[in-house]
Amino acid sequence: MTQNFRLIPDEAFGSKAIIRIRDIDAIVHNFNLFKSKADATGTLCAAVLKGDVYGLQIKDVAPALYNAGARHFFIEELCEGIELRKLLPVDDIHIYALGGLLYNEEQYFQQYKIVPCLNAIEQLKRWNTFCSKNGNGSAIIHLDTHMNRLGFLDEEVKELSHSYDLLTSHLTIEYYISHFFDIKGSDPSNCFRQLDVLKNYLSILPAKPVSFACTDSVILLDNTVFNFDMIRPGVGLVGGAPNAGSPISPDARHTMEIYAKMSQIKTVAQGQTIGYGGAYTTKRDTRLALVHIGYKHGYLRLLSETDSNPKGVYMFIGGYKIPIIGKISSGATTVDVSDVPESVLEQFHYVEVIGPNVDIKVLADISGCYDILGALGVNNMRIADFTLEDYDKIFH
Amino acid sequence: MTQNFRLIPDEAFGSKAIIRIRDIDAIVHNFNLFKSKADATGTLCAAVLKGDVYGLQIKDVAPALYNAGARHFFIEELCEGIELRKLLPVDDIHIYALGGLLYNEEQYFQQYKIVPCLNAIEQLKRWNTFCSKNGNGSAIIHLDTHMNRLGFLDEEVKELSHSYDLLTSHLTIEYYISHFFDIKGSDPSNCFRQLDVLKNYLSILPAKPVSFACTDSVILLDNTVFNFDMIRPGVGLVGGAPNAGSPISPDARHTMEIYAKMSQIKTVAQGQTIGYGGAYTTKRDTRLALVHIGYKHGYLRLLSETDSNPKGVYMFIGGYKIPIIGKISSGATTVDVSDVPESVLEQFHYVEVIGPNVDIKVLADISGCYDILGALGVNNMRIADFTLEDYDKIFH
Repeated sequence: MTQNFRLIPDEAFGSKAIIRIRDIDAIVHNFNLFKSKADATGTLCAAVLKGDVYGLQIKDVAPALYNAGARHFFIEELCEGIELRKLLPVDDIHIYALGGLLYNEEQYFQQYKIVPCLNAIEQLKRWNTFCSKNGNGSAIIHLDTHMNRLGFLDEEVKELSHSYDLLTSHLTIEYYISHFFDIKGSDPSNCFRQLDVLKNYLSILPAKPVSFACTDSVILLDNTVFNFDMIRPGVGLVGGAPNAGSPISPDARHTMEIYAKMSQIKTVAQGQTIGYGGAYTTKRDTRLALVHIGYKHGYLRLLSETDSNPKGVYMFIGGYKIPIIGKISSGATTVDVSDVPESVLEQFHYVEVIGPNVDIKVLADISGCYDILGALGVNNMRIADFTLEDYDKIFH
Repeated sequence: MTQNFRLIPDEAFGSKAIIRIRDIDAIVHNFNLFKSKADATGTLCAAVLKGDVYGLQIKDVAPALYNAGARHFFIEELCEGIELRKLLPVDDIHIYALGGLLYNEEQYFQQYKIVPCLNAIEQLKRWNTFCSKNGNGSAIIHLDTHMNRLGFLDEEVKELSHSYDLLTSHLTIEYYISHFFDIKGSDPSNCFRQLDVLKNYLSILPAKPVSFACTDSVILLDNTVFNFDMIRPGVGLVGGAPNAGSPISPDARHTMEIYAKMSQIKTVAQGQTIGYGGAYTTKRDTRLALVHIGYKHGYLRLLSETDSNPKGVYMFIGGYKIPIIGKISSGATTVDVSDVPESVLEQFHYVEVIGPNVDIKVLADISGCYDILGALGVNNMRIADFTLEDYDKIFH
């Protein structure tokens, strides 16, 4: 019954209330999953490592993926690219910055050999002018297929088409890229409409390699028409998927486990309100416990369970799901342990917050986004942090 | 028109897209504000420094408050207390851990002279037993006045009352504390009902000093009946208040400023959808800009502006409010700059995300909580971080 519940020795917690274990091998496994799908269409498989790899930490992930053969890396902002360049001081990798070339960043892009994904004609002109004076450079051009967020829209694509040679006179354009806006695939026709827009853009531009799909693992794996020349899995690498039922789920491995100490089990009568704002009312006489993780640790407050907005988020102890109830506090979350035998509550002094029994895909489905992965992954002094490899070495 | 908009030199950003400036003097100012209110009733003024002081960073705040005379500090969990003890290695401070005495933490509490706020009879027994073997100790007893979160409820208070001398045989009980659940003061009678519960508890317990109010700055400042022997301002120290219109607002100073680079200004026609999920539809032909801060930096996704859940969050540039529109992405947020003159957009390449023109109290009112302060305050390599004192030294 407790076979999937990790048994953690007291000394692993030390003076902390929370443990995070990051499985870097699992990320490599997931990368290889995408790579084999890409290989089938002769497509390159890049890796998106933005946001400290959704909390999995670039310092461990980047070298592991490099050893697994990854050579094309996307980050978001310049400073992430600089960190990656320092982590992998080799000549045979490509670092692309999805956020674009912001004002006054040109010299850094050149110095650290980071290739900007240019999101506007203004950025293209600025980069081309800089490179005309400081040596030719590379770029990706981001085409906005009506997501209306990042990249060249229709008018700018036309301008690029008309003056391509002039605008790129000192640049090598490595790829055109674009991005899905309906990443949950709630309406597949949205993705095909974007594909049509992309094809229209490409029809008036000089031929270059293309990369379209990014986090959209479902569509990418189901329909190779989106593969083009390079795929860019991101949250899929860390075990996420647009939906809990996505086709990648059975093969992908989870990569992060979070455990937090529990205290203070007590009984509250039916009809009592719990925590801040009195926002949750007990539906029965309820055994409560307090789990010492809250929004200051990245356990986002939007996961709170209230009468007016029930979410159904749970944690896990021994063999049992324990629903969270009430509003999440800064450092604590109340759970309902009424259905857990006392023997289990006495045996364990901690619960699983994310892990094999609390799938991050299910949490993301409930909360609507993977922001919790990154939030919980922030490196701070309040969490005891291990890679699985280190953890196994120390405690076994 | 731009008199309150900070003029930031390019070199302050360096290779980062985001700057955070923390005004430590303002925290001291706010502490003194509470202290003067406390002094009027002969009440001690403590300081709650949990969650890295809501992002303002304990390493700078704790020494400043000590120099301002603060001697009583509340943190939440043990590891925060250890950090504080190392920051202030002096004999004349008191460190109280609100989170309680978790399993197997006794030796650390003793070693670092941290006083636990005991939240259950089980914790009291464990601490008293430990102290009977290792030398007498101190404790606070947390009374739960029907918030149903942390602390002794009715039955446990009765048990404590009946066996007080036995249960505390090796302990000095420094304070009884409790906590409001309706921190927004939406219904003042909630606080007075809790006060009645507290008085009932106190009537059957040996007399000890009492601390009741914590973050509830409005009630605390308006009605000294809640002051008792010690007040514990927390989010109030960093310029927060339960409501934007609270009585502390006119005198309190804001303590954190966040600025982020902007890029890629473009026009999108009326009726277009913006960003992920197509969740926001433009109400007019709209000038968009992209601000390079997102949920991975702590700019919480729940602030997103969608058709079905308009929130009204804005940023600021020059003399102009710029509403955010669409879903917040991991590293970028779209803003509507239609009403900003081109000259202003050309002059500045960054916007104010939080600061004198985007009051954290207004943001907390809109989003429902101060979690964003802590999230944005997390120390990470993607944000250029300064105290105001350091910033002024370097750039003026």
